[in-house]
Amino acid sequence: MVRWSAVWISTLIALSTGDRWGHAEDPDTLHASLNQQAEAWNRGDLDAFMEAYWKSPKLTFSSGGETTRGWNETLERYRKRYPDREIMGKLTFSALETQMLGSDAALTLGRWELDRKEPARGNFSLVWRKIEGTWRIVHDHSSSSKTP
Amino acid sequence: MVRWSAVWISTLIALSTGDRWGHAEDPDTLHASLNQQAEAWNRGDLDAFMEAYWKSPKLTFSSGGETTRGWNETLERYRKRYPDREIMGKLTFSALETQMLGSDAALTLGRWELDRKEPARGNFSLVWRKIEGTWRIVHDHSSSSKTP
Repeated sequence: MVRWSAVWISTLIALSTGDRWGHAEDPDTLHASLNQQAEAWNRGDLDAFMEAYWKSPKLTFSSGGETTRGWNETLERYRKRYPDREIMGKLTFSALETQMLGSDAALTLGRWELDRKEPARGNFSLVWRKIEGTWRIVHDHSSSSKTP
Repeated sequence: MVRWSAVWISTLIALSTGDRWGHAEDPDTLHASLNQQAEAWNRGDLDAFMEAYWKSPKLTFSSGGETTRGWNETLERYRKRYPDREIMGKLTFSALETQMLGSDAALTLGRWELDRKEPARGNFSLVWRKIEGTWRIVHDHSSSSKTP
């Protein structure tokens, strides 16, 4: 009796503290991770920028009607499109909003802006999963706004 | 003892049959819903097409760097962009792939194609949630490929 009760009570505690639907602090964790990502970009450190992404061949990055598959391929795509600091510009994320999709998945919408000679901006949708205790972006769909 | 055992055993059964990580048949259900959606589009029935989307002001639809919020607003956007059958063209979805994000959330990637005078194509990312027992798209991020 004691054993089953203990198991059941710990299950109830896990449910009530949010293990089922994500902890209240998770969106803050994700937004902090994105802010670190932008800081990495702005010091030209693409490897650190890529830290937030799932280091897996299953990572998917969609943009402009095409999907890039794999962490290495996504890094390579960034390297080709942003070959130097001037083209990288200064990246800012804004309007971040996150909804939990269970205990270990979440969706973040937000806007990105590149301050540079030819400024660019748009929005993104990030799907996160908690993998071995750490939140990682498993899918990114980013769009550019039409240049005004 | 009997009571706790029953509860615990039913929990184990729920976990083992996939209540935690989604049923094996869920991706098929989602893909069938998308095929119905394309059929609705192809008979010019935008209201039926919109059935798959969460009928909520919280629905979000991102495309071209902008986010439309709300089911009504998303329908309105489709009505404005596709005012007649010729512009609607024939819609085909392909390369559908779905990953479960828990028991009641999923991510589907896929490609869309509009067969019409000026063909268009691209890809999409759909985030689904099971709401009151029915799978609905709660977020859509769609992109167009550059015209060749």
